Amino acid sequence: MKLKYYPYILKLKDQFTISVSSRTTTHAVMIEVQHNGLTGYGEASLPPYLSEDQSSVIGFLNKINLDSFNDPANINSMLDYVDSIAEGNNAAKAAVDIALHDLLGKFLDIPLHKYLGIHRRDDIYSSFTIGISDLKKIKQKVDAASGFKFLKVKLGAENDREIITTIRELTGKPLFIDVNQGWVDRYFALDTISWLAEKNVILIEQPLAKEKIEDTRWLVERSSLPIIADEAVQELSDLEKFKDVYSGVNIKLMKTGGIRQAYKMMIRAKELNLKIMLGCMAETSCAITAASHLAALADWVDLDGAELISNDLFKGMEMKCGALIIPNLPGLGVEKIIK
Amino acid sequence: MKLKYYPYILKLKDQFTISVSSRTTTHAVMIEVQHNGLTGYGEASLPPYLSEDQSSVIGFLNKINLDSFNDPANINSMLDYVDSIAEGNNAAKAAVDIALHDLLGKFLDIPLHKYLGIHRRDDIYSSFTIGISDLKKIKQKVDAASGFKFLKVKLGAENDREIITTIRELTGKPLFIDVNQGWVDRYFALDTISWLAEKNVILIEQPLAKEKIEDTRWLVERSSLPIIADEAVQELSDLEKFKDVYSGVNIKLMKTGGIRQAYKMMIRAKELNLKIMLGCMAETSCAITAASHLAALADWVDLDGAELISNDLFKGMEMKCGALIIPNLPGLGVEKIIK
Repeated sequence: MKLKYYPYILKLKDQFTISVSSRTTTHAVMIEVQHNGLTGYGEASLPPYLSEDQSSVIGFLNKINLDSFNDPANINSMLDYVDSIAEGNNAAKAAVDIALHDLLGKFLDIPLHKYLGIHRRDDIYSSFTIGISDLKKIKQKVDAASGFKFLKVKLGAENDREIITTIRELTGKPLFIDVNQGWVDRYFALDTISWLAEKNVILIEQPLAKEKIEDTRWLVERSSLPIIADEAVQELSDLEKFKDVYSGVNIKLMKTGGIRQAYKMMIRAKELNLKIMLGCMAETSCAITAASHLAALADWVDLDGAELISNDLFKGMEMKCGALIIPNLPGLGVEKIIK
Repeated sequence: MKLKYYPYILKLKDQFTISVSSRTTTHAVMIEVQHNGLTGYGEASLPPYLSEDQSSVIGFLNKINLDSFNDPANINSMLDYVDSIAEGNNAAKAAVDIALHDLLGKFLDIPLHKYLGIHRRDDIYSSFTIGISDLKKIKQKVDAASGFKFLKVKLGAENDREIITTIRELTGKPLFIDVNQGWVDRYFALDTISWLAEKNVILIEQPLAKEKIEDTRWLVERSSLPIIADEAVQELSDLEKFKDVYSGVNIKLMKTGGIRQAYKMMIRAKELNLKIMLGCMAETSCAITAASHLAALADWVDLDGAELISNDLFKGMEMKCGALIIPNLPGLGVEKIIK
């Protein structure tokens, strides 16, 4: 089995501003695992607030030698081996995990969701993200999202209430609010949440800094809306650590290290009665499609990452009126559109 | 004020089969009320299972003389006068009521929903109706409805479970079930409802004959799904009569006698903690748009009547991804497209 990779820069359609940063690209590393004429595709997406970058991913991938593996169905041994190479490097591991799942599905001739025992559904709706922006731009984005049933709004700006008031003049659709640790004070957070709760807001993602565990616990006890961990919970061990703090968790392949770990986290979150959001980075349709096969296990889905970029490399999961059209083809069901 | 009318035959896109009948057209009477250069549009739609027909509507309209009315804002006096002409004739009365509301809105320069004190929303979704048909045709209709969030399925056929199983192979979307009095036995009904309740069905409309009051009461007490009255409840007096029998009511302008009575019924249903479905007949966008201004008061909306016909006369409320785009123009906000 052979592993190939190449760096790739995702061009964002719009400058993307969240409470802590602003940018127009996201770095990525694309990988391909080849075996007997079959190719499995994978991807590591590397937003700047994570610790990995293109060189760390490439450094990690260079340590992998799949020469001794000859059975795509032996995926767990391969993933165990990759895991054992080094701690962390979850985005790099996710890239390999995604490619190996794609290869496995093609080898077994079954779609990924079927391999995972997940029933394919057509009534799963993704939110569409409205970044922090000037009010005129926000109006344009709400218009552009008119087919979506849920909007995800980035707050933690200086004019949070003005942003929401502007959006509410345009649409009554349910909102996910993502603060990206942008609120400093727990009383301010609780007051803002109470205000938002009257405005058809469904959930609040990462309102306070991930280190503020006791403040978050205080907030969750008093909040009428579920508080979802994003930055605070990367992988399964974090879930155990914070299971009594947050109401739910945003699971992303790049954080968990891929599909195998994301699936385990979703099952564990259900056992713990935690709400599950399935999220993403800006990613091509390769990683987004991989995540979409897990979507039926989530309470809320935010898989608009490929909609945010202008240079997608793949055709895969598509959206119709905000609903995921999950491929029913072997593996991920993606097709490379730019060679 | 002058009243004009003309008969019109609505052509159905597909032969429409429910448990009691099958047809390819619906008769209607279109009306226009003119005052100082303003025109209010109205419509009576006359499906064969209602007691009115084109000649009864025209007979009723011929008795109306609006010569002495000169103030469109005086709508309640006019509607009281029309009501006093004869009992019943609710579709004919609805036509006049709709036209007078359109005229009033144009006269006051406000959209109908605003006149009614209803906030305009963009997150109200209509179901799309799948009539009883052969299984191949059902598949085509499910495909055609791919942008809709809810499907309404007509049951009361011999192969109810086969129809649902076929639909469930294609989509997991929530279903409204309309039996149109098609189930004969209450035990059969309860058994079928229990089976449906496991299949993401949201409500059951008129499962038993409207005369079977005690059987329906028995069924509602045992059903895990809400049972909605349609044929059993035409107008406000029926609502009072059946308020302790059904879980909710399907309110249609053609049954209630128009917007004024439909609004009253919705308010009364809320007081009685009854669920509200807002429905329609096959209608042009004139009557459908009139109903859409009330949609924010309903729990469930089934306003696909103009989607079912191929010779619409008006442009008005439109649907985007199943969501109602309610006009924000004076009156109904409809425009006649065929002169």
